[in-house]
Amino acid sequence: MPAVSPLAPASFPELPAIAGMRLATAEAGIRYRGRTDVLLACFDKGTSVAGVLTRSRCPSAPVEWCRARLAGGSARALVVNSGNANAFTGKSGREATKLTAALAAQALGCRAGEVFLASTGVIGEPLDAGKFASVMDRMVAQAEPSPWLDAAKAIMTTDTFPKVATATARLGSAQVRINGIAKGAGMIAPDMATMLAFVFTDAPIAASALQALISRGVVDTFNAVTIDGDTSTSDTLLAFATGAAPGAPAIARAGDRRLGEFRAALDTVLSNLSEQIARDGEGARKLVEICVDGAVSKRSARRIALSIANSPLVKTAIAGEDANWGRVVMAVGKAGEPADRDRLSIWFGDIRVAHKGARDPAYDEAAVAALMKKPEIKMRVALGLGRGSDRVLTCDLTKEYVTINGDYRS
Amino acid sequence: MPAVSPLAPASFPELPAIAGMRLATAEAGIRYRGRTDVLLACFDKGTSVAGVLTRSRCPSAPVEWCRARLAGGSARALVVNSGNANAFTGKSGREATKLTAALAAQALGCRAGEVFLASTGVIGEPLDAGKFASVMDRMVAQAEPSPWLDAAKAIMTTDTFPKVATATARLGSAQVRINGIAKGAGMIAPDMATMLAFVFTDAPIAASALQALISRGVVDTFNAVTIDGDTSTSDTLLAFATGAAPGAPAIARAGDRRLGEFRAALDTVLSNLSEQIARDGEGARKLVEICVDGAVSKRSARRIALSIANSPLVKTAIAGEDANWGRVVMAVGKAGEPADRDRLSIWFGDIRVAHKGARDPAYDEAAVAALMKKPEIKMRVALGLGRGSDRVLTCDLTKEYVTINGDYRS
Repeated sequence: MPAVSPLAPASFPELPAIAGMRLATAEAGIRYRGRTDVLLACFDKGTSVAGVLTRSRCPSAPVEWCRARLAGGSARALVVNSGNANAFTGKSGREATKLTAALAAQALGCRAGEVFLASTGVIGEPLDAGKFASVMDRMVAQAEPSPWLDAAKAIMTTDTFPKVATATARLGSAQVRINGIAKGAGMIAPDMATMLAFVFTDAPIAASALQALISRGVVDTFNAVTIDGDTSTSDTLLAFATGAAPGAPAIARAGDRRLGEFRAALDTVLSNLSEQIARDGEGARKLVEICVDGAVSKRSARRIALSIANSPLVKTAIAGEDANWGRVVMAVGKAGEPADRDRLSIWFGDIRVAHKGARDPAYDEAAVAALMKKPEIKMRVALGLGRGSDRVLTCDLTKEYVTINGDYRS
Repeated sequence: MPAVSPLAPASFPELPAIAGMRLATAEAGIRYRGRTDVLLACFDKGTSVAGVLTRSRCPSAPVEWCRARLAGGSARALVVNSGNANAFTGKSGREATKLTAALAAQALGCRAGEVFLASTGVIGEPLDAGKFASVMDRMVAQAEPSPWLDAAKAIMTTDTFPKVATATARLGSAQVRINGIAKGAGMIAPDMATMLAFVFTDAPIAASALQALISRGVVDTFNAVTIDGDTSTSDTLLAFATGAAPGAPAIARAGDRRLGEFRAALDTVLSNLSEQIARDGEGARKLVEICVDGAVSKRSARRIALSIANSPLVKTAIAGEDANWGRVVMAVGKAGEPADRDRLSIWFGDIRVAHKGARDPAYDEAAVAALMKKPEIKMRVALGLGRGSDRVLTCDLTKEYVTINGDYRS
C-alpha cells in the first residue's frame, strides 16, 4: 500500500446522519482480503435519484445499468463494490449487474429498477456477483445512519485516504444536510476504474431538479479536475435525496428560488470531494491550480487550462520544482484556441514571469524558485483577448506515478 | 549527457552529396561549449523551397520568419542554431531573425528573403544573433558537399543520436537523390523546442509542387509520431530542391505522373526520420506502433490511435511491460470517436487479448508477458465498424522521462 498522500487533508470532518437512509459495509471477498469491499446504502420510499455518468464509448456494465434506470427517478438502494470494475466483461457483466440488483431488491423488498450500482477495480475480469448473496441480508439488517467513514473506505482502490465532505443549508424554514463520499486517485486509473462519487441529502428535491443541479454542479468541480487526462469507463456521480428532513418544502424545479443556499452547499460538497481527488492523484506531491483569464469564452479558457493541466512537460516541470513558463507557452499554443503570443502573461503564485510575449524582465528567479517548493502551486495565464475565465485543478507528474501505473497488474 | 537510446539505429547510412548545395557547421557559442551549434546550408540559384510549420498559436520567431518567406518559393541559404529556440522572445526575437538572415545574405550575396531559419533550444531567452557574425563568412568559405552527419549533430539538443536518412529515385531518365536530417527527442520538449527536419534533393521540382508533396508526406510520418502529445512552438520541416541533378526533367505540378518513384523515396526519408524521433523519445525504452482498423474513417482511426498513444496510463503500462489492454479500452472509449465496446478486439503483437467486448478466453498470459519484454511493441485495435485505418508511432513513458523533464532547467 502506498503511504498517505502528503496533500491529504489533516483530518476528516464528522458526517451527520441523513434522515431516511442507512449505510452498511461488508467483506464480500471480491478481490481484496482483510478489508471491506462492498457498500450498501438503503433509502426510504420516496427517495429521488439523479446521476452524471462517464461519456466513455466503452462504459462499464454498472454505468449502463444506472443510465437505463435514472429515468425512473426513484431509488431504494445503492450497491458499490471495489476490486472489480465489471467493465469490458460482455454478457457476463450485464448478468452480474442484474444479479446484484436482484439480491438487493429481494433483501429490501423493492424493485430491482430502484437499485443503483457502481463497481471499481480491475477491468476485464468477470465479477462474481454471487458473492454478494452471502452478505446482503446481513447488511440490510445491520445498516445504520452514520458509518460514513467506513462507507468511504469500502469503495477505495488505489486511494491513499477516504474522501468525505458535508455541508448544511437552509431550505424554506428547515435545515437540510448534504453528505458526500468519493473515491479516485487519478482522474482515472482505468485499471482501477476510477472516479466514483455519491451525494446524499435529506432535502425533498424531485429527480429532475436534482439532475439539473448536479449536471451544473459537476462543470466546475469534478469536470475541472484532471490527473492524467485519461477518462474512465466507470466514472459515476449519483445523488440521492430522501426528502426526510422535517419541515422542508418539496422542490419540483431546479430554478426554484428557495434553492439558493442548497445549491451553494451542494457545490461546496462537490468542490471539496473533487479537490480531494486531485490531492490523492497517483504519485502526486503538488496540488496545482491553473487559472486562465482573458480568453474569448469560458469554454476556450477551460480548453487552454486543460491543455496546460494535461501537458506531461508542464507536470514534470512542476514535479521538478521548475517554474518553466516556456512549457506553459507551449501548452497555450497547442490548445487550438484563440491566443496571441504577444498579449500573453503568465504568473506563478503572485510573481509575473512572462509579459506580453516575452520574459518579464523584472522577475526574481530566486523568489519563484522558493515558491515552486511549496506543496500547492497556483499558475495564472492571462490571454488579454476577452472576458472568458476558468480554473482547473491538477497535480504534478512524478516518478511515483510511473511506478504506480507501470507496476500495478504485475 | 544521457546515454544513447537503446532504440537507436545500429549504424548511420552514408549520405551522398546533393548537387547544387554545400554544408558547414561552426561553434558560435550560443549556449553549449565544446560542440557545434550552428549549421549553414548554401544553395545554388534556382533552388526551390517548401515547408510545414507548427500550428502552435505561440510560434517562435524563426517559424514566423519562414512562414512569411515561403511564398517567395526560392532559397539560397538555411541557417539553423541549437541551444536557443528564439521563441517567446518578443521584439528582440524578430530582430534576431532579421540580423541572422542579413548576415547570411551578406556573406552569400543573396537577398535576406531567400534565407530560411530555424532555432532549437531554450524558450524565452533572447538569442544573441550577433554571435553568428564571427562564423558566417568562414562557414560560407568552408562549406562542402558532404558533411551530413556533422550537420545533423550541430542541430541536436536532448537528442541522444544524430538523425539522417537518404533515398534515391528515378525521375524521367535521371537518378535523383533525397537526403534528410532531423532533431527531436520528444515529439516535443518545448524547452528544447523541438522537432526540426530538413530535406534536400537535387530534383528540379517547383516550390508549389514541393509544397504539395511534403504537406501530404507529413500526414503519415511526422504527424503520426507522438512522444508526449505536446506540440512545440518551433516544429519545422523545410524541403529544398536544387534542381541540379543532370538530365532530370523540371516538374511543375505535384500531380505529374513522373513523380511516382520520387514521392515514394521522399516518403521513405520522412518516414525514416520520424521513426528515429520516436526511437529517441525522451527516456524511451520501447518503440510502440499502434494500428487501428475498422474505424468509420481514417481521421477517426487517427484520433483513436493518438488517444491510445498519448495516454499516460497506456504508456506507463508499456514501460512496466504489462499488456494492460483494459487501459487501451479506456483510451478508445475516451477518444470521442465512434466505437462499440461489444465489437472491439485488441491484439498485442499477434496475440488477441480481447475480443468482442470481453477478455479473449483463449489468450496465454505467459506468451503476452514474453512479448511485452521486447524493445518494439505492436498493438492493434480493431473496431469492427468501418474501413478506416491508421497507424501512429510512440514510445513508453518511463521514470527517465520524468527525470529528464523535471530536472532540465535546474
